[in-house]
Amino acid sequence: MPRIIDHDERRLQVAKVVEDLVYEQGVAALTIRDVARRAGCSTSIVSHYFASKLDMLVFTHGTIRRRAEARLLAQIENGCDLVTCLRTLLPSDAEGKRDWHTFFAFWGMAPSDPEISREWLAGTSGAQDLFAMLLGHARDTGEISRSVDPTQDACKMLVIVNGISSLVQQDEASWPEERQLALLKDMLANNFGYREGHATAGAPTPLHGAKTA
Amino acid sequence: MPRIIDHDERRLQVAKVVEDLVYEQGVAALTIRDVARRAGCSTSIVSHYFASKLDMLVFTHGTIRRRAEARLLAQIENGCDLVTCLRTLLPSDAEGKRDWHTFFAFWGMAPSDPEISREWLAGTSGAQDLFAMLLGHARDTGEISRSVDPTQDACKMLVIVNGISSLVQQDEASWPEERQLALLKDMLANNFGYREGHATAGAPTPLHGAKTA
Repeated sequence: MPRIIDHDERRLQVAKVVEDLVYEQGVAALTIRDVARRAGCSTSIVSHYFASKLDMLVFTHGTIRRRAEARLLAQIENGCDLVTCLRTLLPSDAEGKRDWHTFFAFWGMAPSDPEISREWLAGTSGAQDLFAMLLGHARDTGEISRSVDPTQDACKMLVIVNGISSLVQQDEASWPEERQLALLKDMLANNFGYREGHATAGAPTPLHGAKTA
Repeated sequence: MPRIIDHDERRLQVAKVVEDLVYEQGVAALTIRDVARRAGCSTSIVSHYFASKLDMLVFTHGTIRRRAEARLLAQIENGCDLVTCLRTLLPSDAEGKRDWHTFFAFWGMAPSDPEISREWLAGTSGAQDLFAMLLGHARDTGEISRSVDPTQDACKMLVIVNGISSLVQQDEASWPEERQLALLKDMLANNFGYREGHATAGAPTPLHGAKTA
């Protein structure tokens, strides 16, 4: 007898299918029928879990976004250095490339829809809070300049991470991981006075800022 | 009697409709039927001009991209300063926001399709060539540091422009034009030693690099 899959688990399962199909066929070709077929269930079951294709895409974006945020938060709390933390956000492996692809696809959804703009806002504000925390930590350990204002300057970090990812997304072959990291370090040096290997040894200093939900 | 519309003109007309519909409803909801209805013609006429929905989206992206490239090239050739040139690329007005929306939507198309990856590559290489030209010009007029290597550093300019646009796209209300320009100038200063008002007066020095097609 197949085990009973609960509501949240089923939604996550469908989100994975949505991410795969959007990557393989593009968001313009996505249909509920294809999602159901790939998930091995009927369209009426998919419709039971998601009110619409839009709802499905919002949930998929949110799932990937929250996973990326949780990964970054864990690394900050573990006292990882700046580049180690940011590296996990870049499209450096197959999973990262797929996640970024979903982000870009979702940024091309209709801005007039309140569900979409709410999820966009959650994404940018979640990232800014985490980047402010990360910059505060890197400032305290001496990896970046003492003159960095974590809250004020977090948006520059977002520009750098989103910007590098946009280059990789459109020209994967030219951007192996080493090149992404070299550009990242170069821009961290220019914008935050980052100096590689300048973190003080020992336990990390207490972290700044509130945790994101 | 209605005047005869030639092939290219009709394709441009349809591209405008595609851009509008993608902005209003999102790329996931785009149908050839809706495009035909909005363009005031039958689906078979749309199908005469475009082989597929994909073909339509590739052409629409290419049209907007080439228009942005031509605008930037004209400004470089007219000897406009660095920020004036870059300002026209940012999503600062309604048209710019719509163009950027189409770019992000298109970056979320399926990477496995050769037509799409060809158009992505044309976009990044066209922008890099123009940014290298722009940086060479700004270096010669003294707006940025003499140590900037235009060809090498053009990708940083692309990171900054794409990155700022990604923030605006997802949180328009927080990013009026002045704030976009302030962040742009700040990052130009950090990454290229930009100093506002430091261009030498008089005719611009000869431009660098080859023109893009």
